[in-house]
Amino acid sequence: MNKNPLNYIVTGATGFIGSHLVKVLLETGGKVVVFVRSDSIKLSVLPKHKNLIILEGDFNNIETWHEKLEKNINFKIDVFYHLAWKGVFNSLRNDIQQIMNIKPTIDTLFLAEKIKCKRWIGVGSQAEYGPLNKKISEVDPTNPTTLYGSAKLSSCMLTQMLGRQLSLEVGWVRIFSTYGPEDNSGWFLMHVIDQLLKGQRPKLTLGEQFWDYLYITDAVNALKALGECQELNGIYNLGSGKVYKIRTIVEKIRDIINPNIQLLFGEIPYRADQVMHLEANIDKIHKDTGWYPKFSLDEGIRIILNYSMGKGVETGLN
Amino acid sequence: MNKNPLNYIVTGATGFIGSHLVKVLLETGGKVVVFVRSDSIKLSVLPKHKNLIILEGDFNNIETWHEKLEKNINFKIDVFYHLAWKGVFNSLRNDIQQIMNIKPTIDTLFLAEKIKCKRWIGVGSQAEYGPLNKKISEVDPTNPTTLYGSAKLSSCMLTQMLGRQLSLEVGWVRIFSTYGPEDNSGWFLMHVIDQLLKGQRPKLTLGEQFWDYLYITDAVNALKALGECQELNGIYNLGSGKVYKIRTIVEKIRDIINPNIQLLFGEIPYRADQVMHLEANIDKIHKDTGWYPKFSLDEGIRIILNYSMGKGVETGLN
Repeated sequence: MNKNPLNYIVTGATGFIGSHLVKVLLETGGKVVVFVRSDSIKLSVLPKHKNLIILEGDFNNIETWHEKLEKNINFKIDVFYHLAWKGVFNSLRNDIQQIMNIKPTIDTLFLAEKIKCKRWIGVGSQAEYGPLNKKISEVDPTNPTTLYGSAKLSSCMLTQMLGRQLSLEVGWVRIFSTYGPEDNSGWFLMHVIDQLLKGQRPKLTLGEQFWDYLYITDAVNALKALGECQELNGIYNLGSGKVYKIRTIVEKIRDIINPNIQLLFGEIPYRADQVMHLEANIDKIHKDTGWYPKFSLDEGIRIILNYSMGKGVETGLN
Repeated sequence: MNKNPLNYIVTGATGFIGSHLVKVLLETGGKVVVFVRSDSIKLSVLPKHKNLIILEGDFNNIETWHEKLEKNINFKIDVFYHLAWKGVFNSLRNDIQQIMNIKPTIDTLFLAEKIKCKRWIGVGSQAEYGPLNKKISEVDPTNPTTLYGSAKLSSCMLTQMLGRQLSLEVGWVRIFSTYGPEDNSGWFLMHVIDQLLKGQRPKLTLGEQFWDYLYITDAVNALKALGECQELNGIYNLGSGKVYKIRTIVEKIRDIINPNIQLLFGEIPYRADQVMHLEANIDKIHKDTGWYPKFSLDEGIRIILNYSMGKGVETGLN
């Protein structure tokens, strides 16, 4: 075990996962360096903390980051988390800007090497697998059906390869679905909560899909565990390892908010490429880090509802 | 069938495959546009031909190519062949410059769309599969073990996806091993011929590997057939579909040059990641285009030897 806390760089720190990750990393007592665009409107999601160093830096100019680190940082960085990615929402999954994420991703790997940071962890997606309709492990075939999935998979392959050339430990974390307070309301689960809280009936499919939802605190604790573990070993799936029918999830939410709201499943059709079963096999990350999810779906939903109804956020389990 | 010949763009036209492709495309009566760096030392490999239009253009500035086409070309381009790739030799298979090929590859796809060329054909490699040690078809899993293979596979995935977005027909041709006159003497088969012609004994492994060698005229006729076929259908393997033991191939060459030269198999060890069986299943390209290899390995070797010994090149079969 490390006596001294580790120090970190996090890209994408103002995103949903990034901002939660920054908070748990700061709790270790280590220093966290983040790069943020000068025009970022999301700076407020970052905590004020003596160990949080906010540097100005654009995703498209990572070549300039090295100089900024040399000027501003006088400690060693132990783990480089690369979460920044332009275009994560469903509407952008086939946008050509997806491709423009590959070079910056590779640039961060070179930057890690330059600053002698030996461990680099990037964030991928279940979209790299394409529709498998089963419990997915890291050795399953990858056949992405979106530009997003292809660009993530390209980044995965290239960083794994390049890691070997540069003698870096490279981890690649394929995240399934996360959820939690402050998540974007464009995502299904948050959308359902939003609608039901407003007393509106969300438009629903038949809801027979099985989905794997991981609570955000569990997700960032997993990322933290990968930063701390003995030895990184390539690609990791990250999910709850449990699935629920979408229908069941929506009913759970409805029952807490107002059991009298009538739901109408099947009002809208499935997408043409609807995946009916998406489940992460999380044996590998458990084996390598000891991490395992702590929040049940019921607990996660309750926390979000408390938060959304203005009762404040529970930050952990007792 | 097209009454008028098709018109083409070829990138990488001064390379081994590119220069042969340009020649067979010119034989159709169509026009061929190529982009060549102003400092290219390989211009001489291109024929002098009224239908060959040579424009100056760098691989890293494909954004500028559109303007050059608008200025210089007053006909429609039907097929865009993208063969340019920096770092194809074995010594560069893990060089980081491999990654720098992805963006230009994607740029050519956008260029094709801009000039309303509906068919784009890129060149990939068996290296995208990684070591499978069997007859490989296009649906086999892809697990490249080099940066070259990963960058090619990334380009394959991204161009396939992007093709759908841009409504282009995108073909991706995974070439196994080609050989022929003027090929680089760094490649195994050419090296063996070189050495034996000099009366020297090439350094050899045990030679138990099975390898798939396609004669260059067959290879470029396959590319031409893909440009002309009714409908492109994604990824195509391109090989002879036949394998020979490396040992047998070397003995064939030796027997023609000088049966008295003693060969010493096993003088050098296999590579740590030696593939022992590399064979293309070519059913798909045959089905979609009718193409099939015409040159036997014996014929191919004989043509190269005639050429190497200064007797001129046979350009086709009778």
